[in-house]
Amino acid sequence: MTGEFSTDTAVTRRPGADPIVHFDATVRPGWDIGGNANGGYLLAIAGRAMAEVAGRPPLTVTAHYLAPAPEGPCTVAVEPVRVGRRMATAVASLRQGDREVLRVLGTFAEQQDVPALLTDGAPPELPPYEECDDGIDDQSGTDAGADGAGPPAITERLAVRLRPGDGGFRSGRPSGRPEIAGWFAFADHHPIDPIALLLVADAFAPPVFNTALPMGWVPTVELTVHVRAVPAPGPLACVFRTRFIHGGLLEEDGEMWDSTGTLVCQSRQLALTPRT
Amino acid sequence: MTGEFSTDTAVTRRPGADPIVHFDATVRPGWDIGGNANGGYLLAIAGRAMAEVAGRPPLTVTAHYLAPAPEGPCTVAVEPVRVGRRMATAVASLRQGDREVLRVLGTFAEQQDVPALLTDGAPPELPPYEECDDGIDDQSGTDAGADGAGPPAITERLAVRLRPGDGGFRSGRPSGRPEIAGWFAFADHHPIDPIALLLVADAFAPPVFNTALPMGWVPTVELTVHVRAVPAPGPLACVFRTRFIHGGLLEEDGEMWDSTGTLVCQSRQLALTPRT
Repeated sequence: MTGEFSTDTAVTRRPGADPIVHFDATVRPGWDIGGNANGGYLLAIAGRAMAEVAGRPPLTVTAHYLAPAPEGPCTVAVEPVRVGRRMATAVASLRQGDREVLRVLGTFAEQQDVPALLTDGAPPELPPYEECDDGIDDQSGTDAGADGAGPPAITERLAVRLRPGDGGFRSGRPSGRPEIAGWFAFADHHPIDPIALLLVADAFAPPVFNTALPMGWVPTVELTVHVRAVPAPGPLACVFRTRFIHGGLLEEDGEMWDSTGTLVCQSRQLALTPRT
Repeated sequence: MTGEFSTDTAVTRRPGADPIVHFDATVRPGWDIGGNANGGYLLAIAGRAMAEVAGRPPLTVTAHYLAPAPEGPCTVAVEPVRVGRRMATAVASLRQGDREVLRVLGTFAEQQDVPALLTDGAPPELPPYEECDDGIDDQSGTDAGADGAGPPAITERLAVRLRPGDGGFRSGRPSGRPEIAGWFAFADHHPIDPIALLLVADAFAPPVFNTALPMGWVPTVELTVHVRAVPAPGPLACVFRTRFIHGGLLEEDGEMWDSTGTLVCQSRQLALTPRT
């Protein structure tokens, strides 16, 4: 599997017999919002290193964000915690120089081919991909920067299409409902594998932008991603919602569905309310 | 604050100048289901040690469960990751002898007294505490054991009262809806502080018991708890739901509300489908 996403999240394992496995990687340009890399992109770099050590794709991964990351070299140190028959657990630390950017705890496992026993939910109702809001020349598809300096760089890597009305916040017309739905695809048609789901879970604009609160940076404190199935080919139908904004914090719950109508990912993050 | 919960999750810091802080603790009898300690109880022990190192109560905590824990001594090793002005992040490992039981990643912070800006939801509708199902002589309030050997020990520590109908699974009459709601309190009226919320998030029977699937052990892979406010005094109104059972895994989402109608905690866990 090649393409921008794979090459830009590539990790190179250093030789060594240390139980902690060290990787070199690079925070590449073009995955940022106002110069700081998207949190899901950073999690994908760490998750790729962890998956290599675990020998399995991500099942449940939690990242705590410690500092913003500009482009440039980084390292990922992966500590194997437990390797079981079905699952393997690891911790990772992504650093730029002396500065730790994120700490990650994850369990990795192949998806099992067991029939669905309960599906209480459905993909968001979206017009066909072609009829959705393409977000060209605006801030769709990302944590929009608060500087009004035009679309963040990451919008060129992604081909996110928003449900009509959900992108109104970009032109000062928030929908009033703290929800954002739309299609996710990579601009270069890179397939969406479980590592990519770590990015998808943080690739849409914050639903809080569709409230009357001022727009601004919404820093993620913690992001948990559950991979529930390997996505079938094609864009994902995604929906992100915020229900509670208290005490200066909000949660964002995400659901990602594939072209066969299967829930492939659930996410939740805890973030600070917008900082203007 | 004293009471069974405080004394049974107490941790004792070992002297030392190591950046990793070591604690001794004990997995006490009476918090188990069939001899293995409840996952929320174990998380409370680890969370208490982490909070002591962080100097702040839990805000968002994620545990990955690695092995069951019978009663007996344990150790908690806490690695401080980052200490900021408002928040502090740490990793902990809870072990019994050589066996690691859980690994935890958490961020700790005082709750801020900022007014709620969005509340899209309400506590579950429950009859008054006294009119709910007290679960005496049955398996309410816990991950019921699969052995049919009577109520798990933990039911004596807790005073969980289920919504009428939600406990029907115990007598072979599941409600058919994968949801369990009810009141949470400690049997000895111990106040519910943020550390206790780590227990509450795993203290109810799995909602999957109210489906037609066979009952059995539902091992938690990962549990994330977001503390959203410090609970006011009184029992908590709680609801836990499962929406997707696929690939041998299910999620359980929890909401916990205090007596003033404030959402005090959200939780999500990923667990294996019941094993009989």
